[in-house]
Amino acid sequence: MRTVEEHRAVVAALLGPTDVVELPLAEARGKVLAEAVTAAIALPPFDNSAMDGYAVRAAELAGASEDSPVTLPVATDIPAGRTDVPDLAPGTVARIMTGAPMPVGADAVVPVELTDGGTETVAVRLAPEVGRHVRSIGEDVHAGAEVLPAGTVLGAAQIGVAAAVGRATLPVRRPPHVLVLSTGSELVAPGEPLQPGQIYESNGAMLAAAVRDAGATAEQLRFVPDDVAEFRKVLGERIVEGVDLVVTSGGVSAGAYEVVKDALTGHGVEFVKVGMQPGGPQGAGIVEFCEVACPVVTLPGNPVSSQVSFEVFVRPVLRRAMGHPYPDRPIVTARSRDVLTSPVGRRQFRRGSLDAVDGTVGEIGSPASHMLASLARADCLFVVPEAAERVEVGDEVDVWLLDPPL
Amino acid sequence: MRTVEEHRAVVAALLGPTDVVELPLAEARGKVLAEAVTAAIALPPFDNSAMDGYAVRAAELAGASEDSPVTLPVATDIPAGRTDVPDLAPGTVARIMTGAPMPVGADAVVPVELTDGGTETVAVRLAPEVGRHVRSIGEDVHAGAEVLPAGTVLGAAQIGVAAAVGRATLPVRRPPHVLVLSTGSELVAPGEPLQPGQIYESNGAMLAAAVRDAGATAEQLRFVPDDVAEFRKVLGERIVEGVDLVVTSGGVSAGAYEVVKDALTGHGVEFVKVGMQPGGPQGAGIVEFCEVACPVVTLPGNPVSSQVSFEVFVRPVLRRAMGHPYPDRPIVTARSRDVLTSPVGRRQFRRGSLDAVDGTVGEIGSPASHMLASLARADCLFVVPEAAERVEVGDEVDVWLLDPPL
Repeated sequence: MRTVEEHRAVVAALLGPTDVVELPLAEARGKVLAEAVTAAIALPPFDNSAMDGYAVRAAELAGASEDSPVTLPVATDIPAGRTDVPDLAPGTVARIMTGAPMPVGADAVVPVELTDGGTETVAVRLAPEVGRHVRSIGEDVHAGAEVLPAGTVLGAAQIGVAAAVGRATLPVRRPPHVLVLSTGSELVAPGEPLQPGQIYESNGAMLAAAVRDAGATAEQLRFVPDDVAEFRKVLGERIVEGVDLVVTSGGVSAGAYEVVKDALTGHGVEFVKVGMQPGGPQGAGIVEFCEVACPVVTLPGNPVSSQVSFEVFVRPVLRRAMGHPYPDRPIVTARSRDVLTSPVGRRQFRRGSLDAVDGTVGEIGSPASHMLASLARADCLFVVPEAAERVEVGDEVDVWLLDPPL
Repeated sequence: MRTVEEHRAVVAALLGPTDVVELPLAEARGKVLAEAVTAAIALPPFDNSAMDGYAVRAAELAGASEDSPVTLPVATDIPAGRTDVPDLAPGTVARIMTGAPMPVGADAVVPVELTDGGTETVAVRLAPEVGRHVRSIGEDVHAGAEVLPAGTVLGAAQIGVAAAVGRATLPVRRPPHVLVLSTGSELVAPGEPLQPGQIYESNGAMLAAAVRDAGATAEQLRFVPDDVAEFRKVLGERIVEGVDLVVTSGGVSAGAYEVVKDALTGHGVEFVKVGMQPGGPQGAGIVEFCEVACPVVTLPGNPVSSQVSFEVFVRPVLRRAMGHPYPDRPIVTARSRDVLTSPVGRRQFRRGSLDAVDGTVGEIGSPASHMLASLARADCLFVVPEAAERVEVGDEVDVWLLDPPL
């Protein structure tokens, strides 16, 4: 029997980093920067005014005060965006707007509120310090400085600073494209009528959503008949068309009709038992069709087994392929609120509810692999280790935090 | 001067809940359920086997053991998905696969590993308990039970359980569509050549990304000329075409050329000073063109001011409109690592780096509103209240957690 870590390593070896693509800023959002962004220009790119007011030589206003304002001629008017700003002649000031370039010679800005607001001449009621209300070139970023290191997850502020240094596109790792293939002759598409003995197919929609939540792209295919040749044909066609990873669910246990196992055994996929619960029967390998090789991970068919297996084996691999700095779920320690028994030799991933304030975790539902409604109410998975036969109230367990309320 | 809370209330009143749309599961991902989902069927929908093995009457195998197996005829073979399962005749067993329906009369499953695996007759080496390895109808969900309450954020597991009870679509609140409009004659699109006095336009890309991060949809429009009539024309055309909210940046301060302020003053938008830093100059209101009314929020143009204002005023409103149970950022308390001074009467939102382990927060960059590179390195905003003139090392401050590394 393989350990969880051994099978994680086998799956991790299947998928390397995806290629780097240069995407427009809007499409780069949420992805991971593949190369550092250095500033082609300084930020601010030039000395500019932080206020609406007047650009002045501070020394010429040294005597200005409320009681004895100093009046100087207004030589020019500098709106933001003006590109032909003349030098400031001694003995004059320039009317200037927020963000507008400082004229050469000026060394401070007096806010309009501290003047009479004149346009021909202006009476200034305060002696400014040198540099006051001036944003200097390079104060935020020096030209040539690194503004975003490789591995940055691109949110709004990161996209903002990339735009500010003039980047219209960013190099990111392409999200892997995943084919999610559910098998089982008992499966019926949601929304259609159900016969006795049939169930609605939920793994496809669930795993496709999990792939997308991880930042990758997904397509879903439901394969119903237990026909091995047909299964290989359908899978081969999609692999040849181009897929980065195939994730199947179902058809891998010890039964008489196991289409995935029957179709892929001896064709690159190794089927194993992993010492975990849920999710014991697993498979992984590289499948080749028409000289096109494609990694395949085969998950068990029980809904909770398949989703937990995805969390443990597939999600970290997809995120690592995209260059995520934190491919794994955040793990915290909490004290159990329940007494739990567990089979020795299996690492149990139980569905839980974390109380982050008092540092405890309680079980939601039961460890059984068909309790999907409980999984939908859980905010975490927590781990009962292989060696533990029993967890007492107050025992510490590792807790994998699932997505917080968005 | 308006308080932060007063202006938050003004902006919140602009946008009600969006309409409810029924979306396919794949498109419902990440959105918020508008109505509870109740189960049209039980889960499991019928008693079924949890193992590959034999469906039996437990009483008929009471004497079975390793030393004296009991052999019974195999009456039928029940793969998963079989819809015509006959009753189990007394004195017989049925070969059964995981997930297959239990025949009427059977009350336990013996795993194949505890038998000789026969197909005509089978020797059973264990006396099963009644109910062993049987998943009973409704064990996970009773028919008619609520599986997902209204207000659920739809992740993979929630979509999985909806599919399992047969739902192909889910009712969610439509994401609002936001027009992001940046103004300023100094602005140049990233990637184009920059003249002296010009800067790259970063607010549009940043705010559009922030809108999308909040779960809404965005389109970007850059309006360069300081032409009030043209601005009103462009804005009016887009509003008439259909937009849920307009967010502008720039053109709202005290300068001589303030296109947003000049175009919308007296037309439904009130321009005010809010007691916060950055982000003092704000505006909000309902603008009407050709009898189409549209909420407009006008943010200041400095990049940090505009992004922080979005966080404080716009993001919660977008999320509330979509029905999010937690429209605001999570807020925690931490001790300051720095001595900070702050203007009395202004609530400062500083950019910070939280150390969640030791419960401290330190400032990244400075409070100045043009320090965009620092914002891109921050993982939180922290609040220096209006009444505080000074924060000492160790003083507790409120910390708004920005998006974690995805």
